[in-house]
Amino acid sequence: MCNCVSRLSTHRAVGAGKRGGSDSDTQQSTCGWRETRGNEEEEKGERERGECDKDGIFCHIVRPEDININMVQAKSWILTKLFDGVPKDSDFKLEVEELPEPKDGEVLLESVYLSVDPYMRAFCSFRMKEGDRMIGTQVSKVIQSKNPAFPVGIHVLSNFGWRTHAVSDGTGLTPIMPDWPQDVSLSLALGAIGMPGLTALYGIEEVLGLQEGETLLVNAAAGAVGLVVGQIAKIKGCKVVGSTGSDAKVAYLKELGFDEAFNYKTVASLDEALRKASPDGYDCLFENVGGYFSTVALQHMKNFGRIAVCGSISVYNDSTPQTGPYPHLTMIFKQLKMEGFMQGRWQHKHPESLKRLMAWFKEGKLQCREHITKGFEKMPAAFIGMLQGENIGKAIIAV
Amino acid sequence: MCNCVSRLSTHRAVGAGKRGGSDSDTQQSTCGWRETRGNEEEEKGERERGECDKDGIFCHIVRPEDININMVQAKSWILTKLFDGVPKDSDFKLEVEELPEPKDGEVLLESVYLSVDPYMRAFCSFRMKEGDRMIGTQVSKVIQSKNPAFPVGIHVLSNFGWRTHAVSDGTGLTPIMPDWPQDVSLSLALGAIGMPGLTALYGIEEVLGLQEGETLLVNAAAGAVGLVVGQIAKIKGCKVVGSTGSDAKVAYLKELGFDEAFNYKTVASLDEALRKASPDGYDCLFENVGGYFSTVALQHMKNFGRIAVCGSISVYNDSTPQTGPYPHLTMIFKQLKMEGFMQGRWQHKHPESLKRLMAWFKEGKLQCREHITKGFEKMPAAFIGMLQGENIGKAIIAV
Repeated sequence: MCNCVSRLSTHRAVGAGKRGGSDSDTQQSTCGWRETRGNEEEEKGERERGECDKDGIFCHIVRPEDININMVQAKSWILTKLFDGVPKDSDFKLEVEELPEPKDGEVLLESVYLSVDPYMRAFCSFRMKEGDRMIGTQVSKVIQSKNPAFPVGIHVLSNFGWRTHAVSDGTGLTPIMPDWPQDVSLSLALGAIGMPGLTALYGIEEVLGLQEGETLLVNAAAGAVGLVVGQIAKIKGCKVVGSTGSDAKVAYLKELGFDEAFNYKTVASLDEALRKASPDGYDCLFENVGGYFSTVALQHMKNFGRIAVCGSISVYNDSTPQTGPYPHLTMIFKQLKMEGFMQGRWQHKHPESLKRLMAWFKEGKLQCREHITKGFEKMPAAFIGMLQGENIGKAIIAV
Repeated sequence: MCNCVSRLSTHRAVGAGKRGGSDSDTQQSTCGWRETRGNEEEEKGERERGECDKDGIFCHIVRPEDININMVQAKSWILTKLFDGVPKDSDFKLEVEELPEPKDGEVLLESVYLSVDPYMRAFCSFRMKEGDRMIGTQVSKVIQSKNPAFPVGIHVLSNFGWRTHAVSDGTGLTPIMPDWPQDVSLSLALGAIGMPGLTALYGIEEVLGLQEGETLLVNAAAGAVGLVVGQIAKIKGCKVVGSTGSDAKVAYLKELGFDEAFNYKTVASLDEALRKASPDGYDCLFENVGGYFSTVALQHMKNFGRIAVCGSISVYNDSTPQTGPYPHLTMIFKQLKMEGFMQGRWQHKHPESLKRLMAWFKEGKLQCREHITKGFEKMPAAFIGMLQGENIGKAIIAV
C-alpha cells in the first residue's frame, strides 16, 4: 500500500507497545504520536487520488478542487544577523512571500513538522550569511501537484528550511519510508526514525563498531541523538553511561535503562563522575558535546578506545573558539581512534536502517520521546531553547 | 646461517645500491654503515662459538677465555630531575655500578648502539620519577653467556635503557632479524629497519591505509620516522609533502624524492605553505608534531582525510600544556579520522615487515640516513640535540 495520506487533527502522546497516556499540555510525548484521524470519507478520497497502482506507478487524477487559484502565502524565518554567542530572537525575521502556482512538473508543499537541530547553529557560523533563510528539514505534505511522482496528500521529507510552503520540481524530495504505519506520527521521520536515529545507528555500528559487553559513554544523552544512542547500545548488550544537564533528564535516562546517568551541571567533578560511573573506563565515547567534556573524557578512555565525533554543542555558541589541551599525547599512549561523521555517508543503507529503527520502536525497545512546540511562529524560540537544553528527546515544531 | 658475530672497528658511510662516500667527520651517514671487519681469524672463532646447528639449536662451547672473572663496570644515565621544559645536562647523572657475573641461564650484554627518540621525552613526563634510569632501546652484544639461547658474540635488541652493560636472563631480549646482511650496520635495527621504520610502515598501511595517487603530508619529515614515511609513500606512488626545520633538511628531502618540502621555521605562513604545496589539500597526515601545526593542518585535510597520530614533539617540552582550538567541528564537517598508535600493536607482523624494509633498503628505494654521536658519555647531549632537531635521520649513539 502506498503511504500517501496522513491527515492530522489532534495529537495524543502514546507509547510504543504500551499505548496511552498524554502530556500534550507540556508538549512532551514519551514515545511519539498517534494521529487521530478526521473525516474518513475525505481521507479515502485523498487516498484514491494519490494511490499507486500495482506496478508502483502513481495514478494521479487532478480534480478541479485540487487547483488553488489563490497564491499561497509562504512564511519563512530569515537569519538577519549572524549569531554572536547564543542566538537571540532579534537575529531572526519572519518573512512572508507569495508563491506562484506550481507549473507542470512541480508541486506545492505545506510543512507539517519542522526540525530544529544543534547542527544548524554550527552550520550558520560557517556556511550562511545574513539574509539567508534558516536551513533545515521538514515533513511536508503535497497540497497541489502537477508532478505525478508526488501526488496530492503524500508526505515527503524536504530540506527547504524554515518555511511553511515551497514549490518544488521534486528535486531533493524524499518520500517517507514505505509502509510507515498509520499509527506512528510522521514527526518521528525527523527524529528517532529519521536523521538523528540514523546518526545514532551509524555512529554505533559504522564508526564505533560497538561490541556486546563494552562500555559506552554518551553525552547530551537526553538529546535527539543521545537518547537513541543509549537505547541501541542497550539493545546490543552494552553498559551505557549518560551525561546530561538536568535531574529530570537523569531520571528519564535511568527509566530508559541507562546503567548510569549523571547531571554534569551539578556533579562536584566531571572527572570523578566519569570514574565513579565506570571505574574501568570506557571502550567507546559517542561525542555530542566536545570542549571541556572531551578533554576530561579522553583521560577515561580505555586503551584502543574509539570516539565517534557526532557533535560539539558546547562550542557552537563561541564567538572566540574555546581552546583545550591538544589530545595527541593521550591518543598515542592509549592508541585511541577518533572519527567525525555525518549520517549521509551511509545513505545507501538508509532504507534498511530505517526499517530496523521502526522495528525496534514497534517492539517497544526504542522509546521515541519528543519535545513538541506548536506554531511555526515559535521556531526561533524552539531553536534557542533546544540549544539551551530545554528539550528531552527530539525538538519538533508542529505547524 | 646464524648471524651471531658482527665485529665493529671503523665505520664508513655507504649508500644502499650505490656504495661509497664518507662523511664520518660530521657523524652523518647518508644511507647506513658498512662495517670494516677486523681479524678474520678471530671473527671466525667467535662465529664458531655462537653458531646454530642445522636444526636451529645453539651449540655454545664455553671456553676459559669467555669467563671474565672481573666484575664489569656498567655505566648508566640516571634522571636526577624531572624535566622542566627543555631537558638540560644537569637533569642527568652518570652512575657506575659493578655488575655480578651472570649466573646459570643469564648473559652479560654490552651496548654497541643506543637510541635516543622523541618518545622518551614524553615518557619521562608521564611514567618516570627522579632517580630512574633513562629508558630506551639498544643493540647489545652478548659478551658472556650462561644461556645457550644467547651465545657469546650474537647481537640482540634490548630495552635496558641508557646503560653500557646489563645482566639478563634473556627475558625481553629480541634477536636481530635473521639473515641481517653483514654489510649493513646493526645500528639500522634501531632506525629504518627497526622501531622507527616499523612505525612509519604501520602508520601508512595499518592506520592511514594510504592509497596510490593520494597526497600525504608528513611533519618532522627529516626525523627518524618522517624520512621513512616519505620514502614509503613515494614507493606507493603518492604525492609527498614534508615539513621540516632547516633548509638543509628541505634540500635532503627533495633529494630523496619528496614532491614538496618547506622549512616551517622560515615560511611566512604555515597555512599558506600548506596550501601552496597542495592546493587541493591532503588525503593523509602523518602527525609527528602536534600542537599548532595540527590545528593549521586540520584545515587543509580533504573530506574523509585520515590522520595517523604518531608523535607530538612540539608539546613534549611543555611544563604547562599548550592549548588549541578543539578539533571536533572540523572533524565532523570533513568527516576526518584521527588515530593514535604505537608500532608494538602489530608485533605479529614485525618479521615480515622488517624483511620488506630491508629489501627496500637493499634495492636503494629506502635511504637510511643516521646522525651518529660517538661516546656513551654524550647521550644526554645527543638526546637534547635530537629534541631540538639537530639530526637528519635517526639519532644514534655509538658506544
